[in-house]
Amino acid sequence: MTDAETTRATTVGDLSEGQILRGILDRLPPSTAPVGPGDDAAVLSVPDGRVVATTDTLVHGPDFRLAWSSPFDLGFKSAAVNLADVAAMGARPIALLVALAMPDDTPISFVRGFADGLAAACAELAPDCAVEGGDLTVSNTLTIAVTALGSLDGREPVRRSGARVGDGVYVIGELGEAARGLEVLFGRFRDADGTPLVITPEARAALGADDARGLARQLTPRPPIAEALRAADAGATAMMDISDGLVLDATRMADASGVTIALDSATLGDDPDRALGGGEDHGFLVTFAAEARPLGRRVGTVVARRSEAVTVDDRRWSGRGGWDPYRDWDAGRG
Amino acid sequence: MTDAETTRATTVGDLSEGQILRGILDRLPPSTAPVGPGDDAAVLSVPDGRVVATTDTLVHGPDFRLAWSSPFDLGFKSAAVNLADVAAMGARPIALLVALAMPDDTPISFVRGFADGLAAACAELAPDCAVEGGDLTVSNTLTIAVTALGSLDGREPVRRSGARVGDGVYVIGELGEAARGLEVLFGRFRDADGTPLVITPEARAALGADDARGLARQLTPRPPIAEALRAADAGATAMMDISDGLVLDATRMADASGVTIALDSATLGDDPDRALGGGEDHGFLVTFAAEARPLGRRVGTVVARRSEAVTVDDRRWSGRGGWDPYRDWDAGRG
Repeated sequence: MTDAETTRATTVGDLSEGQILRGILDRLPPSTAPVGPGDDAAVLSVPDGRVVATTDTLVHGPDFRLAWSSPFDLGFKSAAVNLADVAAMGARPIALLVALAMPDDTPISFVRGFADGLAAACAELAPDCAVEGGDLTVSNTLTIAVTALGSLDGREPVRRSGARVGDGVYVIGELGEAARGLEVLFGRFRDADGTPLVITPEARAALGADDARGLARQLTPRPPIAEALRAADAGATAMMDISDGLVLDATRMADASGVTIALDSATLGDDPDRALGGGEDHGFLVTFAAEARPLGRRVGTVVARRSEAVTVDDRRWSGRGGWDPYRDWDAGRG
Repeated sequence: MTDAETTRATTVGDLSEGQILRGILDRLPPSTAPVGPGDDAAVLSVPDGRVVATTDTLVHGPDFRLAWSSPFDLGFKSAAVNLADVAAMGARPIALLVALAMPDDTPISFVRGFADGLAAACAELAPDCAVEGGDLTVSNTLTIAVTALGSLDGREPVRRSGARVGDGVYVIGELGEAARGLEVLFGRFRDADGTPLVITPEARAALGADDARGLARQLTPRPPIAEALRAADAGATAMMDISDGLVLDATRMADASGVTIALDSATLGDDPDRALGGGEDHGFLVTFAAEARPLGRRVGTVVARRSEAVTVDDRRWSGRGGWDPYRDWDAGRG
């Protein structure tokens, strides 16, 4: 037998939970919390006595495919989407808690790449944030459940219910890039049966610039966390993460605020339908009063409530309406 | 066709995420947080500017079986184990974030029962705690990831590293009851192939009192949260949740503290092996200085570090050593 036949990759099933945890923590920046990982729970400082908390889960199958996402990508994305939810309240992300449920044949190299992705997302998007706790379990389905915590640092939380008639409607970040990436995945990286195909370096290099950028944004979204905090400081009246598509998320903001959000498709670039319907960019939808100094680009105006929560060019929008994991499950299975 | 053939139970796949969420939130006590569920993230008050945070996951297969645990039991247990980790730091639980990943054929009645279990655990164990956020996703494997947050209310966190030579070692809560329950499940509620059998009311009624109590503790552990907080107030030098068995968890405390914990088997009831090795009771291991007024029952003494982190009657303990999900996975599969 050759070496390749007698040795195989170390898997999480070969190691104790403690050994796996050390392998993760060794790749992350050290904790600066009063109590970091390793005790029953972490202790974190939130100087103004208010903590912002959110949780979001990525499940193999409906939320990602290992043929398409590298372990690094998954660590990066699972951090980024939670950091965006904290920042959308006007809070500075300070900590992640990461629960990882893995099949016991998962190679330990997966765990290392995943930890590197977590670390990279924190370093790039939210440098005050570290992984302060977590949990490892066995599962037949690879599942990543991340909780993010943030500090308001004296700011008032910016809620989705604060939009007022006359406010300008702004978007910070990109629209439609992640949806373009999903189209690339479904269109080019599946076989005739719909089974995901691995993205080889050659296939990635053969993509046009727009498709390559969309693919990168789909796999590793880069929510503009620092700009969201500046928007809060600039007096944003309402803010939320655009995770499920501009129209669907604007509908949620409009319903929470008791207003209608009138969008102008001319502000949405050369593919307004993709910008209106495509999810997963994790930019921010923000409203500012007329007298504020806004951030982002203006996409519409808050008006008095009409029969429609959101209008596009003063009409109801009839395009595809964002992402609901239950409804889109069959599509996601492909 | 009869009605029973033409109608079927409503499943989570029939409903939108928002509809399912409303079904959960309607069964829970209302939020008292500055910002409760429904925005990008919750905002919670921690008056002394420090928040305690922990996360723990239950996965169908290694962590529970639907034949054995009712939806109510799962809601109760997933809350209880996380509340215990918060209390083990000396913190008062204030919020749960609950991420639920479910197959799309999960009946909606599961979600209702699960929510009732969450609510019951908070009401009984930690009345200041409410569900302040969460996430729903589709998965082939039913997975429950709960994050619990707590407020120290001016207390210093009680770490597992604080045990000092000469301290008394105490246990608050039960030992070995949940392990007895696991023995009942594996011994009486599996068929010849090891497949779990549903626990009928008749079968439960036929259990002796001890087995019935063990089964109840295994399925719905009741960590004495309020007593853990009183132990912190009484000056506990170290404290931790006993989740994986007394010897294994005492080993962790001893290693973190640089001491040896000398246990006395005569203090451990009539089945010391089960008390030493059995996990999942979620009581508390606590150390107190000699001059303190301790809580719980004394089970040993902290001594200078020896070659063994833990001794039982001055010898190394050679019994079965607690619960590690990776190592015990095959047993759990049965």
